[in-house]
Amino acid sequence: MTEQALPKSIEWIGGLDGYAAVLDQTLLPGEVRIIECGDTETMWGAIRRLCVRGAPAIGVAAAMGVVLGIRDFQGGDRQRFLRQLTSVCDHLAASRPTAVNLFWAIERMKRKADWTPGTVNDLKAALLAEAKAIRDEDAAMCRAIGQAGEALVTEGAGVLTHCNAGALATAEYGTALAILYAAHERGRQFRVYADETRPLLQGSRLTAWELDRAGIDTTVICDNMAGLLMKQGKVDLVVTGADRIAANGDVANKIGTYSLAVLANAHDIPFYVAAPSSTLDLAAPDGNAIPIEERSPDEIRRGFGRQTAPDNVPCYCPAFDVTPAALVHGIVTEHGLTSPVNEQEIAKLQKP
Amino acid sequence: MTEQALPKSIEWIGGLDGYAAVLDQTLLPGEVRIIECGDTETMWGAIRRLCVRGAPAIGVAAAMGVVLGIRDFQGGDRQRFLRQLTSVCDHLAASRPTAVNLFWAIERMKRKADWTPGTVNDLKAALLAEAKAIRDEDAAMCRAIGQAGEALVTEGAGVLTHCNAGALATAEYGTALAILYAAHERGRQFRVYADETRPLLQGSRLTAWELDRAGIDTTVICDNMAGLLMKQGKVDLVVTGADRIAANGDVANKIGTYSLAVLANAHDIPFYVAAPSSTLDLAAPDGNAIPIEERSPDEIRRGFGRQTAPDNVPCYCPAFDVTPAALVHGIVTEHGLTSPVNEQEIAKLQKP
Repeated sequence: MTEQALPKSIEWIGGLDGYAAVLDQTLLPGEVRIIECGDTETMWGAIRRLCVRGAPAIGVAAAMGVVLGIRDFQGGDRQRFLRQLTSVCDHLAASRPTAVNLFWAIERMKRKADWTPGTVNDLKAALLAEAKAIRDEDAAMCRAIGQAGEALVTEGAGVLTHCNAGALATAEYGTALAILYAAHERGRQFRVYADETRPLLQGSRLTAWELDRAGIDTTVICDNMAGLLMKQGKVDLVVTGADRIAANGDVANKIGTYSLAVLANAHDIPFYVAAPSSTLDLAAPDGNAIPIEERSPDEIRRGFGRQTAPDNVPCYCPAFDVTPAALVHGIVTEHGLTSPVNEQEIAKLQKP
Repeated sequence: MTEQALPKSIEWIGGLDGYAAVLDQTLLPGEVRIIECGDTETMWGAIRRLCVRGAPAIGVAAAMGVVLGIRDFQGGDRQRFLRQLTSVCDHLAASRPTAVNLFWAIERMKRKADWTPGTVNDLKAALLAEAKAIRDEDAAMCRAIGQAGEALVTEGAGVLTHCNAGALATAEYGTALAILYAAHERGRQFRVYADETRPLLQGSRLTAWELDRAGIDTTVICDNMAGLLMKQGKVDLVVTGADRIAANGDVANKIGTYSLAVLANAHDIPFYVAAPSSTLDLAAPDGNAIPIEERSPDEIRRGFGRQTAPDNVPCYCPAFDVTPAALVHGIVTEHGLTSPVNEQEIAKLQKP
């Protein structure tokens, strides 16, 4: 197919009277539809319904949602403006109560307003600029991750990835997929296997869609086929994203990542993780300190229309698992490639 | 829930003027519907549409389909009767051209007719008796597998299984699941984790349904969660069925079995296979001689109703994988438990 520019999960169109264009990921891969968010409520719904997902992209969405909630403020009363800002921020914070990046972005927007002198109009302009900066900084950071890791993808390699750590999860480029995009730009030929990633199928619905759109040779597999592929010699590299990295290098990521790491290890295939350094959580000494979120059994039982498990049989639905540092060959951040993975090397990433 | 008798995948109801009752497995777990097959065409469709599935159950269905095709034969001309029998057999053989048990059962029915002296009515009675015998022998063999393996399931154990090697795949009891039913009958308490088994979800749709119905504590997981469960110490035993076992003990089974065996090995969890000795294929020296069937990408792409992967992205859909004998702790057949698994031990199973 013809290569297309990387999809934008979210971008601001126009000036202060513009809107945030959100790609509705719930409809992919069947339909590409942009939601024009012109008010906070529409953005709140887009975050809530997972139209926009992935920690960095959610942060950008929240920041733009803040702009939408204050740009129509009438009058010049700075204190009243700041009170409305707080109310908008509180409301947006409730859209996905467990998304750390959401709170981070909202706090940053509040701080920006507090520190910006001048009129209400100055504040409005500063907040729009800040939301755009959050987006641009994330894109630049993803880009840096890609540059730092692209050499891992050698000519002719088979690369296995899990879930969607791609352009769709971030402002642009992605994390694990940024590495693939950077290798592709250098003209390297390689094949990507995308785990479909049950239960929510971010791999088949999103990763396959964005890689294919960029002209990268991609094949979807079911999660349980990874072992066979490795045995067949089709996989030279496994690369995934990360939700959280503990101080010792243990990696929490989408459920299934740990199984992949064990399988890669058993087949002597290098297993790498790509994530911004903000993913490092030094407060967690190791993976045991990272709680595993359990999600609704219906994500398994009624994931895509028809019912696939009996009503009265429990479904265990952990959202994440933890891969021990010993199984991780290296971690790619915007600061470079860290290998081996251990407490000393992780600590260095915090003070680049 | 109240324990119910094991489901019958297929049984003959009444005498020669009766019918074959086939449980429509395509509707499980949502609906329990019996198809009353009173003619060969209905049975042909039930086999074709996978209403009845699993090698042993398909064999029984074919044998009963033969009876349905000859029982209304008019007159006493033995030669003409045998010609009609051949024509019915040829037709049934085309319902699922790759099902070895189908051909085996049809050949056995033909041979029975050839060897039975007497009138056309004698032949009809003999063929019905033979079809019932095929069913009963399979049930008895499954029962023997269960008895041979039940001691593997210790009090309080966590048992992981894959796909459906259960009552629904056989005439009764199943193979891997026969072991669980036998342990349950002895009053042992244990918990079963059923891999949902992408792409066709036989684990969540069928295994969970039949185990729960029998009163066995069952939890459904996605295939990619098996590693986490093992790491959490929830799995003490993995037991699966087999589609074919090579002379050296390599096991071909549903895709995903190999990944499970590698994961079990990495966590020091015993991995067992349960199958009738007819599954042994001494003509295949090892797993390399067993071809891996590739199935339609749409089983992955449109498995749940709605589309879950882009149209233009290939999906690789192997139906089986091969687990090396070295990862298999033991094989349970109707003759007993074979361990360790190697060429010498496998050879003994052929001459019990």
